[in-house]
Amino acid sequence: MPDLLPRARSSQESVFARMSRLAAQHGAVNLGQGFPSGAPPAFLLEAARRAVGTADQYAPPAGLPALRDALGADLGVDGADIVVTTGATEAMGLLAQALYGPDDEVLMLEPVFDIYLPQARLAGATPVTVPLRLTAEGGWTLDLDELRAAVTPRTRALLLNSPHNPTGRVLTREELEAVVTLARQHDLWLISDEVYDELYFEERPTSLRALAPERTFTVGSAGKRLEATGWRVGWVACPPGQAGPVAALRQLASFCAPTPFQVAVAAALPLARQSGFYEGLREGYAARLHLLARGLRDLGAEVFLPGGTYFLMARRPGWEAEVLVEQAGVAVIPGEAFAPSQALPPGLLRLAFCKSAGELEEALARLERFCRSPASHE
Amino acid sequence: MPDLLPRARSSQESVFARMSRLAAQHGAVNLGQGFPSGAPPAFLLEAARRAVGTADQYAPPAGLPALRDALGADLGVDGADIVVTTGATEAMGLLAQALYGPDDEVLMLEPVFDIYLPQARLAGATPVTVPLRLTAEGGWTLDLDELRAAVTPRTRALLLNSPHNPTGRVLTREELEAVVTLARQHDLWLISDEVYDELYFEERPTSLRALAPERTFTVGSAGKRLEATGWRVGWVACPPGQAGPVAALRQLASFCAPTPFQVAVAAALPLARQSGFYEGLREGYAARLHLLARGLRDLGAEVFLPGGTYFLMARRPGWEAEVLVEQAGVAVIPGEAFAPSQALPPGLLRLAFCKSAGELEEALARLERFCRSPASHE
Repeated sequence: MPDLLPRARSSQESVFARMSRLAAQHGAVNLGQGFPSGAPPAFLLEAARRAVGTADQYAPPAGLPALRDALGADLGVDGADIVVTTGATEAMGLLAQALYGPDDEVLMLEPVFDIYLPQARLAGATPVTVPLRLTAEGGWTLDLDELRAAVTPRTRALLLNSPHNPTGRVLTREELEAVVTLARQHDLWLISDEVYDELYFEERPTSLRALAPERTFTVGSAGKRLEATGWRVGWVACPPGQAGPVAALRQLASFCAPTPFQVAVAAALPLARQSGFYEGLREGYAARLHLLARGLRDLGAEVFLPGGTYFLMARRPGWEAEVLVEQAGVAVIPGEAFAPSQALPPGLLRLAFCKSAGELEEALARLERFCRSPASHE
Repeated sequence: MPDLLPRARSSQESVFARMSRLAAQHGAVNLGQGFPSGAPPAFLLEAARRAVGTADQYAPPAGLPALRDALGADLGVDGADIVVTTGATEAMGLLAQALYGPDDEVLMLEPVFDIYLPQARLAGATPVTVPLRLTAEGGWTLDLDELRAAVTPRTRALLLNSPHNPTGRVLTREELEAVVTLARQHDLWLISDEVYDELYFEERPTSLRALAPERTFTVGSAGKRLEATGWRVGWVACPPGQAGPVAALRQLASFCAPTPFQVAVAAALPLARQSGFYEGLREGYAARLHLLARGLRDLGAEVFLPGGTYFLMARRPGWEAEVLVEQAGVAVIPGEAFAPSQALPPGLLRLAFCKSAGELEEALARLERFCRSPASHE
């Protein structure tokens, strides 16, 4: 047999898929992959059950007009600038294909969400990372001078993610303004992964698009917002005039996003906004964040609180992701999975708290048993 | 603003998306894009309504184990060799990325399903087409010597599609055996797009995999088989040992296919097989094929009957796709859309008969009115 191409041979199972597989294999409580253990809200489920049997055939590749309009209204943009995608992962991949290629560089922050790097390489480009550094106070700082210094004549785009996965860092308006100034100086595209836009615990994150509408592609996710990560409905809000080519690339990817779920999300977006669904979501997650953080601290772990997302980072001597999933029965994501090139402080783990209070308590009880076991001191 | 990359700028709306858009705009009966106008079968809808609210989060990128097993049982392959994709379009795109790249050529038949060419180019490869030629008797012949002559040292793969869209041609076992001999001589991968595997009107098509399991990637579609093209569940059956890298590329595309629909398709596949659903589908489509063919012939059109798929090709002086959608109120696909490099006989149109008898009759009535109108003689 001929070989597959290097880009296929070098592709690996993601750390999230891998830890979910190991979690199932070891009967572990899964605080690894970022999906809620609860069901999506009833108003979304009802809309989907109604759509199944009435909207089952291809949608236009750019998305159902009703969904593009609902997204436009929700985001405050023209529906014509929206391209609906099969989840935010596909949206990020399409933007990599559209915006950079061989001989191009794209800047991104490290720790870095795992797919950004291989998606950039698949597009032929070189990803260049700039570190978020952990401070003595447990926060994460972005050195703007370091970011400026990383721009070269080959840089085509700057990819940001706020609230940031895995650190939970929310970039400030001042930081984003500096980024925009830099992007305008060097005529860079901006890609803003805002899938956690409604999941924050302090002030509402600034959307990069508000500062640079002419060059910002904003990526969002109905799966994250509406607790249905398996429904595969995401979107890109494009700079005016750029939706056409993105939609054209999009039809070569998965042609269109699942039609019944597009119908359901279109119906659910205004309901979620009007009914205070996102406020309720934040309150629920804030409570679970503090349940998990308190429990981890009681076990002697150092905890780094997020400004947004449904993840926190923590560390404790003796805790390693590979060991915990097998011996403690708790799946988490190792920090190194997000830091391929930079030296992260050792031992950091990402824990998801988008799970039920019962699961979080069970995970804490298992970690406590593990801390008391001889294995944890080996 | 910087420019988008050439690969994005040169991407265009597909002819199917375009004709569906024009059909909606002109209130035309849509015999263009290949999606059924009826609802999917009740056993599939019920399974989906049950899955919504119980299986709403990420699936493993390679697919839910239950679906991989159901597909394995249906196709007679090991479930471990199956990768579930977000529709067959994505499957074809992933194989392009996995199997060919810069400096590679891929052979395919022309007329050619529109996405194969840009997907090959997006992977950096050069698509090379070999013609299916329309005979005096109204059939389509493949000249095997011409196919052999098209192989060069750069050829990496041969992409076949049987039953073939748009001609409906089913490749014979003898033709496929010659293809396999050629592929083994030159160590080529085989990609076999078999989304219409259950839609045939004469003898059951031979699956290429049966002849060359070691090198054949077979692409299939639940949307085509189960009449739910908007659900976005497709698959690749890979040669043994090749599913891992395909699944790894797949998670960079749309991460996973919609989970509730994977659950529903897993439940529906054995039911469809056991209940005689596909036989009923073929009977229903055969009746509609003959309704449309007879009606078109009565209007003086020349009709080319398919061996499979839910399309037929036809031509009549004065009938052009652009004119028919606007002036007759009937959307069809122009043959040239499938023949970018070869001279097809002029005036061929592709008409879908996966529509209700009422819609087909309405389309025929409109075409008859158009034939009697002065516009048709301009």
